[in-house]
Amino acid sequence: MAREWFTVRACGDAVELLDQRRLPEEERYLTLRDVESVARAIEDLAVRGAPAIGCTAAYGVALAAHSAPGNDLAALCAAVDRACERLAATRPTAVNLFYALECMRTCCAEAAAAPAASLTTVRQALAARAEGLAAEDEASCRRIGEAGLPLVPEDARILTHCNAGALATAGSGTALGVVRAAFAAGRKPSVLACETRPFLQGARLTAWELARDGMAAHFMARGEVDLVIVGADRVAANGDVANKIGTYGLAVLARAHRLPFYVAAPASSFDLATPDGASIPIEERGRDEVAFVAGRAVLPEAVPVRHPAFDVTPAELVTAWVTDRGLLEPPFDPEPIR
Amino acid sequence: MAREWFTVRACGDAVELLDQRRLPEEERYLTLRDVESVARAIEDLAVRGAPAIGCTAAYGVALAAHSAPGNDLAALCAAVDRACERLAATRPTAVNLFYALECMRTCCAEAAAAPAASLTTVRQALAARAEGLAAEDEASCRRIGEAGLPLVPEDARILTHCNAGALATAGSGTALGVVRAAFAAGRKPSVLACETRPFLQGARLTAWELARDGMAAHFMARGEVDLVIVGADRVAANGDVANKIGTYGLAVLARAHRLPFYVAAPASSFDLATPDGASIPIEERGRDEVAFVAGRAVLPEAVPVRHPAFDVTPAELVTAWVTDRGLLEPPFDPEPIR
Repeated sequence: MAREWFTVRACGDAVELLDQRRLPEEERYLTLRDVESVARAIEDLAVRGAPAIGCTAAYGVALAAHSAPGNDLAALCAAVDRACERLAATRPTAVNLFYALECMRTCCAEAAAAPAASLTTVRQALAARAEGLAAEDEASCRRIGEAGLPLVPEDARILTHCNAGALATAGSGTALGVVRAAFAAGRKPSVLACETRPFLQGARLTAWELARDGMAAHFMARGEVDLVIVGADRVAANGDVANKIGTYGLAVLARAHRLPFYVAAPASSFDLATPDGASIPIEERGRDEVAFVAGRAVLPEAVPVRHPAFDVTPAELVTAWVTDRGLLEPPFDPEPIR
Repeated sequence: MAREWFTVRACGDAVELLDQRRLPEEERYLTLRDVESVARAIEDLAVRGAPAIGCTAAYGVALAAHSAPGNDLAALCAAVDRACERLAATRPTAVNLFYALECMRTCCAEAAAAPAASLTTVRQALAARAEGLAAEDEASCRRIGEAGLPLVPEDARILTHCNAGALATAGSGTALGVVRAAFAAGRKPSVLACETRPFLQGARLTAWELARDGMAAHFMARGEVDLVIVGADRVAANGDVANKIGTYGLAVLARAHRLPFYVAAPASSFDLATPDGASIPIEERGRDEVAFVAGRAVLPEAVPVRHPAFDVTPAELVTAWVTDRGLLEPPFDPEPIR
């Protein structure tokens, strides 16, 4: 899609990244010149959203290959391995990260084993694979939008959570991809974006993209919500969904108000090796992210903080999974994802 | 209760008020010398919490009487009337405000009609009535604590919302009054405080008092919550409860997880002239309170904002109303409140 900003891209010997922590005040791009900087950008949430994290990590691996010293293939492959290890240690929940790193590892091994392999061919293969992952993600968003289109009535009032839009992906977004597809089809949906911490992603990011602030249960009770659609950081083999903390609460509220609750995610967010939600590692983030807002202390020092970044929504609360392989309805069958 | 800070008090020819917007960073008191300043402090949320608003308004009326020019009783009573009108226009939902103003109006009329009435006797009567309302509120908190004590098991994990503590009252708090009573009785409850906007009252205020940040549905699903207790800004004649936005969602979640949901409020928060929740006026506050956090813009300018300050929880989701007239159980009968 044409737009004047981008989430992440490779540019010469650097990875360029929109610093999402500064939105909406400032549209500032970070220029990252080594793997460590890329890893820290992921850890510190300069980039967030499961698909975007995967793409960023892939670009980081290509960058590591590009700038690896020495001139033998073994050293290059070792540098790629180290980059993958470092990047895998950034955030535990979004499975797209591990999917992207696995793709890059495989690509490196195959390129290095090819008949006429050289430093240049391996570097080119890795750069192309990272671009390919971003293109895959963009296509996934489009297909998710198509799969979700029949779910969005003409004037649907859609509630979403956190940010699962273009900022979270290399394309038009997962949950917001569906909204965008509905707009493109001439429908006039409206979007309520619930706010989330630590970085007020609902207000700052989803709103920056298109939406508005809201109070979920209140608007559901008043009949002002027709459907709920969220993204996912990881979907387990039984259909359980790990996503931004607060998602589970929305799912319970949607059920209580008899509203459909959809999860929009590409195949790369599905982890069939993880049997269920209880097996998904849930990241606990640091205290300061909730203790401070915009640099101001909002929490007394003596107060302990619980700060899980994600929660798990059981499959039985999901009305349908909107994927780039089509719409999956209960009972959840992972077959199309394999 | 002994403590080193206070929410609001009369001091000479001024009303002193803890500026709650500055907590926890700074414990700064405002010195308000006229009714208009008191009204603005209520409007701008320097003081919040239904009982505390009522007490502050009462002190504001006494201040108006104290500083009214002229030297005839009619002029003094007219100044009191104007003060009541101005203060009544500050915030529409918390009924304690109107209760306190009605008490002050009646007090003024009675004092002015007394045989030896003078400017001095009327001023003294109003000052005493305001102190009396604060003392009433303190006693109410204590009785609410006693009424709620049987509801709190030994190691109860209590979830609360926004701030219904000492900061919201002239006493030990409503919802937190119950928690304090449990502590005083030697029990060891723990408190999860959900965060709220516009001013992050959960983190900044309840935590400043005693608690910690939390994510309601997530912790309910993990079995880490035993009961939910909240305050109220107004309870209608059928038991419906207006309280800080987000309360209704918590009530639905509590029901879905089969947890008791208690509402703690003094009789002055019950409005038997309002038949049900739908008839309670719900304040919509300004855009800037959600568009800015700690002075930083977090919402793009083009984005419309819905910002109801309260929501309504239907009586059928309330396990019990914990009042200064005892514990009221369903079906709600307002008789003890009359």
